[in-house]
Amino acid sequence: MFHAKLEAKTWKKIINALASIIEEVSIEVTPEGIQFTAMDPSHISMVDFRMGKEHFEEYELTEETSLGLDVDENRKIVNRSKPDDILTMDADENRITLTFQQRDGETVRKFGLPLIDVIGGEKYKVPHLDTTAKIRLPSHVFDDAIKDAYIISDSIMFRAESDVFLVKAEGDSGSIETEIKEWLEYEVTEQSQSTYNLSYLTDVAKSVEDEVTIDLGNDMPLKLTFTLDHAEILFILAPRVERE
Amino acid sequence: MFHAKLEAKTWKKIINALASIIEEVSIEVTPEGIQFTAMDPSHISMVDFRMGKEHFEEYELTEETSLGLDVDENRKIVNRSKPDDILTMDADENRITLTFQQRDGETVRKFGLPLIDVIGGEKYKVPHLDTTAKIRLPSHVFDDAIKDAYIISDSIMFRAESDVFLVKAEGDSGSIETEIKEWLEYEVTEQSQSTYNLSYLTDVAKSVEDEVTIDLGNDMPLKLTFTLDHAEILFILAPRVERE
Amino acid sequence: MFHAKLEAKTWKKIINALASIIEEVSIEVTPEGIQFTAMDPSHISMVDFRMGKEHFEEYELTEETSLGLDVDENRKIVNRSKPDDILTMDADENRITLTFQQRDGETVRKFGLPLIDVIGGEKYKVPHLDTTAKIRLPSHVFDDAIKDAYIISDSIMFRAESDVFLVKAEGDSGSIETEIKEWLEYEVTEQSQSTYNLSYLTDVAKSVEDEVTIDLGNDMPLKLTFTLDHAEILFILAPRVERE
Repeated sequence: MFHAKLEAKTWKKIINALASIIEEVSIEVTPEGIQFTAMDPSHISMVDFRMGKEHFEEYELTEETSLGLDVDENRKIVNRSKPDDILTMDADENRITLTFQQRDGETVRKFGLPLIDVIGGEKYKVPHLDTTAKIRLPSHVFDDAIKDAYIISDSIMFRAESDVFLVKAEGDSGSIETEIKEWLEYEVTEQSQSTYNLSYLTDVAKSVEDEVTIDLGNDMPLKLTFTLDHAEILFILAPRVERE
Repeated sequence: MFHAKLEAKTWKKIINALASIIEEVSIEVTPEGIQFTAMDPSHISMVDFRMGKEHFEEYELTEETSLGLDVDENRKIVNRSKPDDILTMDADENRITLTFQQRDGETVRKFGLPLIDVIGGEKYKVPHLDTTAKIRLPSHVFDDAIKDAYIISDSIMFRAESDVFLVKAEGDSGSIETEIKEWLEYEVTEQSQSTYNLSYLTDVAKSVEDEVTIDLGNDMPLKLTFTLDHAEILFILAPRVERE
Repeated sequence: MFHAKLEAKTWKKIINALASIIEEVSIEVTPEGIQFTAMDPSHISMVDFRMGKEHFEEYELTEETSLGLDVDENRKIVNRSKPDDILTMDADENRITLTFQQRDGETVRKFGLPLIDVIGGEKYKVPHLDTTAKIRLPSHVFDDAIKDAYIISDSIMFRAESDVFLVKAEGDSGSIETEIKEWLEYEVTEQSQSTYNLSYLTDVAKSVEDEVTIDLGNDMPLKLTFTLDHAEILFILAPRVERE
């Protein structure tokens, strides 16, 4: 048995962010909070999610369990919530119930969904990456660079030089190069450059709020870290290695 | 000959509401006002519409007549009106002219449309229904319950209990149950429960303004009553009888 | 070599207006400013564009040249600009670079596009037209008349009478007649009437700002003149001659 209560808009934000990356997820429920680590079907990207129990208004469980969710079905439901709804989640072995209610309201809207068996639900471990540059950016700067690249190409190159963060894309119809200096934090151990598939990044960039931290190396996976309300999200993307 | 004048936004609202329910309509024009009773082609829903002459700024007729309208063509035209336009309608035997003009404006926009012969334009009579519950709700409460159900199922169950109005839907991917207590009026003679096709209701719910009155019985047609500005609209929907 | 600087929103407006009329354009760059005259592939409409160097913040060229632009690719790029971005354009023989930067910003976004060879890039000359009526209208009055006609027909008739400007359209499903008297200027030498293809006009009407000047004759090409910020645009459309 799992019972939790939080602002519906927080859960809506989280589920919508996940829906752009993964289709199914098996969330682990522990006494400390909820979490999962998942990979996309092609094993090119990994997402790690954690939200501590202290960020829920109510949080109770009888034993550790996991909740298999069809992310898109959950998205349809949370998107029916009102901005100031309170969401109560109750799960047993087979089913999750999402109840929306205004704080002072008498109308109770109770959605039920079956829990699912998540295929390929192996446990993944977040790899350690010896990245050589860390850049913290306002989210709109990151999002603009991704969107600029998207109209030009299907891949994007990041390069952290000593005094400028470069984002480049090249396509049949043109090129784009953005020189970014509006960082919140910038640490470069050595010049670092890698190229990535753009479609994974556009989906993630939509969800980033406030700020995002980028960890970059040379032809290494990209690590993006950001928070959605109090949930911590880590996104790792394999580099696209150019054939010579 | 029929001549009438009213605010364009009132007629726009009415025609858009009708367009979601019926394709053609034969409006009866009498000295008391305009009205019609129509059924959808599958004879599952009935709509009755009345608007008294006192709600027009000008209203003149030489004899009782009926106006056969292609609702969608009329919708395209009224949707070209401006929020503060005055609409003048003039009809002869074959044609209706819709003239839009700002109250203080010099530009006159005059649309002409042929009147049509409405197929199957028999006269219908609104049936008397021995319903056992009457619930008056704010329109947003009704609309939310319909939209919640729509993401889950293609049918919806209403149940009026002594102290709560329940709306339920069940589908392959989940279920929804809404407990409504935010009524404006609630009279239950006996517990009343019926199930309806949802697609008819979603179309109507879009048009409901301010409040709606629901008359419900046991496995009986549903009766919805609401007004659009000063037009009175009554919508009756046959129940879906579950096969055992 | 060509270098110019102006507000990105001005160029965005111009490129979006052009994109609705033509696909490719060869812009002539002279010491006085930029300009071109182009026809659509079916030679039914002509557009003439001019923008003096005094309307640029910076404007430098080493010799007269022409810039062959894929209008749609340029549109995608300018639409990525922010409302208060400054746009710097730099062109050499093969390539144009569009650089966006906030006035006080450190982030530099540099888009590169190949210049193209414009097929059929003959030089056109704007014809002299002996029109017999000149009507200057607020753009919303013109735009409304075009949109009203569009829901009825694929052609539109303009008639300038001594004291009223009439716009008419007739289709299978109805008719529209607009009597316009809200002009800013109205000079009619003789009653003038012509009919035009509506699809060309709807595309142009979208782009018209503030006001538009219409020059009309009897079964003659239509001439529309308007400005976008400081660019002067002239649009000429061949009449549709009705078969008897």
